[in-house]
Amino acid sequence: MTVRPSERALKAAAAVSEERLWARLMEMARYGARPDGGVCRQALTPEDRAARRVFVERARERGYAVSVDPAANLFVRRDGGGNRSAILTGSHMDSQPAGGRFDGIYGVLAGLEAIDAIGDAGIALPRPIEVVAWTNEEGGRFAPGAMGSMAWSGHTPLEAFHDVTDADGTRFVDALEETLAAEADLDRRPLGGRPHAYLEAHIEQGPVLERDGVDLAAVTGIQGWRWFRVEVTGRGAHAGTTPLAGRRDALQAAVRAIEALNRLMADPDDVVRFTVGRMVVEPNSPNTVPERVVFTIDFRHPDLDALTRLGDRIPEVVAGAVRPCEAEVVETTANPPNRFPETIVSLVEQCARALGHSVTRLPSGAFHDASFVASVCPTGMIFVPCRDGISHHPDEYAEPHHLAAGARTLTAALVTLAEGDD
Amino acid sequence: MTVRPSERALKAAAAVSEERLWARLMEMARYGARPDGGVCRQALTPEDRAARRVFVERARERGYAVSVDPAANLFVRRDGGGNRSAILTGSHMDSQPAGGRFDGIYGVLAGLEAIDAIGDAGIALPRPIEVVAWTNEEGGRFAPGAMGSMAWSGHTPLEAFHDVTDADGTRFVDALEETLAAEADLDRRPLGGRPHAYLEAHIEQGPVLERDGVDLAAVTGIQGWRWFRVEVTGRGAHAGTTPLAGRRDALQAAVRAIEALNRLMADPDDVVRFTVGRMVVEPNSPNTVPERVVFTIDFRHPDLDALTRLGDRIPEVVAGAVRPCEAEVVETTANPPNRFPETIVSLVEQCARALGHSVTRLPSGAFHDASFVASVCPTGMIFVPCRDGISHHPDEYAEPHHLAAGARTLTAALVTLAEGDD
Repeated sequence: MTVRPSERALKAAAAVSEERLWARLMEMARYGARPDGGVCRQALTPEDRAARRVFVERARERGYAVSVDPAANLFVRRDGGGNRSAILTGSHMDSQPAGGRFDGIYGVLAGLEAIDAIGDAGIALPRPIEVVAWTNEEGGRFAPGAMGSMAWSGHTPLEAFHDVTDADGTRFVDALEETLAAEADLDRRPLGGRPHAYLEAHIEQGPVLERDGVDLAAVTGIQGWRWFRVEVTGRGAHAGTTPLAGRRDALQAAVRAIEALNRLMADPDDVVRFTVGRMVVEPNSPNTVPERVVFTIDFRHPDLDALTRLGDRIPEVVAGAVRPCEAEVVETTANPPNRFPETIVSLVEQCARALGHSVTRLPSGAFHDASFVASVCPTGMIFVPCRDGISHHPDEYAEPHHLAAGARTLTAALVTLAEGDD
Repeated sequence: MTVRPSERALKAAAAVSEERLWARLMEMARYGARPDGGVCRQALTPEDRAARRVFVERARERGYAVSVDPAANLFVRRDGGGNRSAILTGSHMDSQPAGGRFDGIYGVLAGLEAIDAIGDAGIALPRPIEVVAWTNEEGGRFAPGAMGSMAWSGHTPLEAFHDVTDADGTRFVDALEETLAAEADLDRRPLGGRPHAYLEAHIEQGPVLERDGVDLAAVTGIQGWRWFRVEVTGRGAHAGTTPLAGRRDALQAAVRAIEALNRLMADPDDVVRFTVGRMVVEPNSPNTVPERVVFTIDFRHPDLDALTRLGDRIPEVVAGAVRPCEAEVVETTANPPNRFPETIVSLVEQCARALGHSVTRLPSGAFHDASFVASVCPTGMIFVPCRDGISHHPDEYAEPHHLAAGARTLTAALVTLAEGDD
């Protein structure tokens, strides 16, 4: 079945303001701004709270209702159609520690732009539209990422994340309560829901759209991933007096483990994504043999078989490599590859074309909140190009006209979905 | 020339109190006490300041003059002989972040015990004896270590350390000023001096004395060392979207560099000491390809030729291994191997034997403040056994009777040295 955009959908899309969207993106980029032009707005920090407050204010200016759930997921609601199930759109507002100005926040502000444009075009819809900002998608401060959408979708109970600590030892639940206390003026809503559909706009975070000169992608699905936390335990000792032969050096053991994992993950087709992004050494003193090293593994693959086969071997490969140290390997989060429904993928394509934008189909290499919402309701994503494929980096950049094309396509698709039957 | 201990020296040594020395060590271990029984009392922290204050109080109780120099080196003086040059003894009070209760602090409290014993024995000496607590010997918070004795001895100007920062970004000079401000009630003295001799008592930090059942070692010298700071720069990128072939992953580059250095340093005789004790990853997020890794190299060798030949190759080996990343290698501190004068080594042996303790000669694998004081005046060290050779670790332990034997030998040697001609 192919759903085509209605006239009203195209009229609403035409009311999207490239200038307003860009101005709001630049406004948000001030919260957590880095001297290098990037953004450090990690989840549940003062910078994140300040940005959320601005988002609430922009929503209230337009008269939307704002509410927050126990995971601090933030919802802005444009009413319509009484109690019929809502169309949900959005993304996240938190960034990597050395992140950019578009990853996540673009999907939130494109959602806000969409409901503003619908209102500006004088269109009443038979369903509510809700714009959501999911909590802690990045996972850079509290791992894993996507805690908000995992808790909301029932993938993982919120309580399972309570005792996760950041690098300073702050517990997730304490940071969460701090944010909720700062937002005590907002209506509270329970976790979960049954939206009619979910659509998330995002920068591509890859090089394809730019290279091929295409305006947009209708995202076909998201590759699967498995995250691990590896803790290597050795024995601290004096660097000047302890012969190397008798050492149990946790850092040298971690180096051997990473080398062994590199061999396991070697892939001539370069499809495997294997990353050790975080490593913490204790006591981390130049003249003490390291006693303990904790590092993370981020392993992704579009194929479930490869994800299972290679991922399952990680614990034994690590254990073999770290001897005479010991290692504990814990899988912290995982999700199988998912495919978005053809109706949603096709709708995004139809909307983009009807608005005069070139469009292609792409899978997502990154995970997104959509990975989890997809288990609750029909879900899709829209990608816009980003320069050199760079994201999670201060140099991340997207062109205003591409961002606007994405917001227009999102608007048309939201209106079309809102007009759909239950 | 062999100097033998005098009768007065042996009398003073007999007044050493094993109980008092042990009680003071246990008292000091409360400052920075760790739940695991170890000590975290890094230089110029509140814990370090609290311990220094207790040391000052214990000194004042006995009527000694206390002074502090611009590097926060703390001096306790037992007067004698007018303006004749002093005999200097002592060590340091700071610990590793996961350190023990004896490394450093033993040498300071053994010095205090020695002058107390001399007083208790009613002995007047023809020279002053000063007990010094050198600042930041460990270098775990502010690298390199031994800043206090390096600045005092003229090895490195104090100003050269001002801008060194700890892991939290605190500058050394700011932490130093904070400590000096807290000790504004002490007399100030200039850096430097010309002691008649320097003698430092310390735990062995190696397994030899315990294994051989020997009470003490007369230390013959200290192996040389070279420390390096390596900064590897790659490019941050998204872990899910960036193909491995195109990455410049600073952590993977650091792993290759460490593997290459392991090959360079491979030594069948196990004499080389090569340690990567500290590593910091940026942005240190599980799903971001690391952009920057800083790690330290602690390389030591008793032979100057090997120290020079292997150390000089480190920059090229690192540069070759990190490609396509880039690396900057900076040598942060170095000292050639040193040999203590035979007169001092022999005096320690004579004193130990005269007091009925077994004694052997040992080189030091660890560096000490004595490494730098040795360039200013005749210098020696006394080692006492420590359990399993463990130090820089909460399990570090030394027997009370061994600690007392070291303090008695120190006392006898200090008195003998004080009786010597200019």
